[in-house]
Amino acid sequence: MNNLEILTASPTGLCFGVKRAIKTLEKELQNGTVYAIGSPIHNPQETYRLEKMGLIVVKNPSEVPNGAVCFIRAHGITPQMQAELETKNARIVDGTCPFVKNAQEKAKKLSQNGYSVVILGDVSHPEIVGINGYAENAATVLTTDDKVPKELFGKRIGFLSQTTQRVEDFCAMAAKLTAKTQELCIFNTVCKATLERQQAVQVLTEKADGVIVLGGRNSANTKKLVEISSSRVPTLWIEHANELDKAWLMDKHSIGIAAGGSTPDWLIQNLIHTLHNS
Amino acid sequence: MNNLEILTASPTGLCFGVKRAIKTLEKELQNGTVYAIGSPIHNPQETYRLEKMGLIVVKNPSEVPNGAVCFIRAHGITPQMQAELETKNARIVDGTCPFVKNAQEKAKKLSQNGYSVVILGDVSHPEIVGINGYAENAATVLTTDDKVPKELFGKRIGFLSQTTQRVEDFCAMAAKLTAKTQELCIFNTVCKATLERQQAVQVLTEKADGVIVLGGRNSANTKKLVEISSSRVPTLWIEHANELDKAWLMDKHSIGIAAGGSTPDWLIQNLIHTLHNS
Repeated sequence: MNNLEILTASPTGLCFGVKRAIKTLEKELQNGTVYAIGSPIHNPQETYRLEKMGLIVVKNPSEVPNGAVCFIRAHGITPQMQAELETKNARIVDGTCPFVKNAQEKAKKLSQNGYSVVILGDVSHPEIVGINGYAENAATVLTTDDKVPKELFGKRIGFLSQTTQRVEDFCAMAAKLTAKTQELCIFNTVCKATLERQQAVQVLTEKADGVIVLGGRNSANTKKLVEISSSRVPTLWIEHANELDKAWLMDKHSIGIAAGGSTPDWLIQNLIHTLHNS
Repeated sequence: MNNLEILTASPTGLCFGVKRAIKTLEKELQNGTVYAIGSPIHNPQETYRLEKMGLIVVKNPSEVPNGAVCFIRAHGITPQMQAELETKNARIVDGTCPFVKNAQEKAKKLSQNGYSVVILGDVSHPEIVGINGYAENAATVLTTDDKVPKELFGKRIGFLSQTTQRVEDFCAMAAKLTAKTQELCIFNTVCKATLERQQAVQVLTEKADGVIVLGGRNSANTKKLVEISSSRVPTLWIEHANELDKAWLMDKHSIGIAAGGSTPDWLIQNLIHTLHNS
């Protein structure tokens, strides 16, 4: 399409931690088969691409053959799982995000220093399962709306966050905990990546006639980007460039592109290429 | 007055820390002259009573004679002032409230462990001056409405409170600090005495036809009790039983009594006696 200006949100798509992990995995796949505990990225096209390169995704360390190469995704794993891999003489390729690693270390430090560890996050999320492992699997995991459980009243509490929580929610829970304790040690382990991506979409809506959000239909963070964008400008939510609705482009002079947190760069480039040739 | 029911708020008047300090001071005055750094209690009648027993109030350790007995009031003093008294061979009678002492110890611990100490409170209040002394006089003192100063962003912060602050305000500042730091160690040093006294007045208004609040006209905490009471029942604010307005009592069957934080028990007893004989 002639004269169509294409603007990309910055930052957008994969965060530093996931990009770094995938790069590490790709490098390792050049040497042969790599097992991964859990899918390295919540994107079917990207997972398929990596599987073609030799990736085998399993659920548990018990499924990894003795002496195999085993990749740990950005979310990290528990030290107990890591120990199981080591007893199998697996060569571990650690893609744990440094921000998640920091949260794991803080959980370990707090637990070792006798604090009752509290984590703000989703109890079933692999990142939380991993971090909790560093707190002897004894952490209390709370979500935003939770009250402070009575059994924590008056305890020495160590508090940290799943890296993708909103900082406002983390602060609100810190206030609730402050009211119920004499001693509270807080490590603010919120990563700014999610917030920065949301702010970037907002900036984009001020410059573009419409925004295309590229990301999985089941992705919570992508949905949030769509909400922000659609409240300001016409917004199209697609998973892949081949879903592009050309009629939607007709009256636009400038198009913004934003991507969910599990959308790899090559899918974004693919969309830009399609737009330039539409 | 016949059939007048008299109800006293519980707790009310002097808090544990001040009561304990005055008791210690009275005991010491039986042996002779005692110097005090600052007035032991913000009540002119009570100070006059103690001065008659041999109390001499001074402002600074430099005014205390060599070898004298020196009383430290419930608010506490700085370790630097304490050292000055020790070089004068003063015999120190320590009336520092244990809750204030706890805050001083926490400030020292945080300071020694490399935290930037932040205290919620009134920068000119003697309690804060004392606690700050234990943080090498380097603490940042914030009040409820303050923003977090930029120079604290990203620092390892140790946070505590003047003991008489409202816990809601302490929690709100904890949330603000959480947003601006990676590491925040909080000691909740708020003493519940002030809140309990306010709640006790509220309970009293549910039982009494009117409430007499006994306390200094310049006392902030007494004013707060009057506000709570007068929004619910007819309320009389007096400093001494001899100000009692008998006409005000005429239509009442039950009278509640509450006292400000610097009102000694004997003034309350005096009022009860006057009511019974009016």
